Amino acid sequence: MTKLIAYYKAPENKDEFEKKYFKEHLPLAKKMPGLVKCEIVRLKGLGGAEPRFFMQAEMYFENEDALNKAMGSEEGRAAAKNLMSFAKEYVSMCIGEIEE
Amino acid sequence: MTKLIAYYKAPENKDEFEKKYFKEHLPLAKKMPGLVKCEIVRLKGLGGAEPRFFMQAEMYFENEDALNKAMGSEEGRAAAKNLMSFAKEYVSMCIGEIEE
Repeated sequence: MTKLIAYYKAPENKDEFEKKYFKEHLPLAKKMPGLVKCEIVRLKGLGGAEPRFFMQAEMYFENEDALNKAMGSEEGRAAAKNLMSFAKEYVSMCIGEIEE
Repeated sequence: MTKLIAYYKAPENKDEFEKKYFKEHLPLAKKMPGLVKCEIVRLKGLGGAEPRFFMQAEMYFENEDALNKAMGSEEGRAAAKNLMSFAKEYVSMCIGEIEE
């Protein structure tokens, strides 16, 4: 199993960001073909420390090939375009291969 | 569901690190009471970019209370002590509340 992980730094306006993320972006991302499941994770630091990221989103696919196909699909491109319209400065992504 | 997420920067000696992580640390971490599941994820950047982290480990618990109890348990303290013996300079942790 492979997942696309998007890490989000704390946005300046959290309410506005969350509205766009959960009402606009996530429904688009969930349309990606081959998406097995997704996990949206709110982060906090240990012992009250400030977390490195505000949130991370994990989109699971059967394998890296399926992930790449999803990202290149019409639905994947629409989701990415939407994300870049409001989260470009907060997001960074990587691909995670689940070892176990 | 809540997860403890440990992010690992690329260690200087990956073979040595992995040996200690998978043969020593992970078996200890898996003994933590209340651990529902764990995911060990190898990371790579998108489009060949260098990833921010080398690996991330995600330990799932029913809720934050269970996570805190696990970390404070004898098994949790043994796992943490072991981790600090070889990964102190590479690891950072946070708590993730799974929103959906």
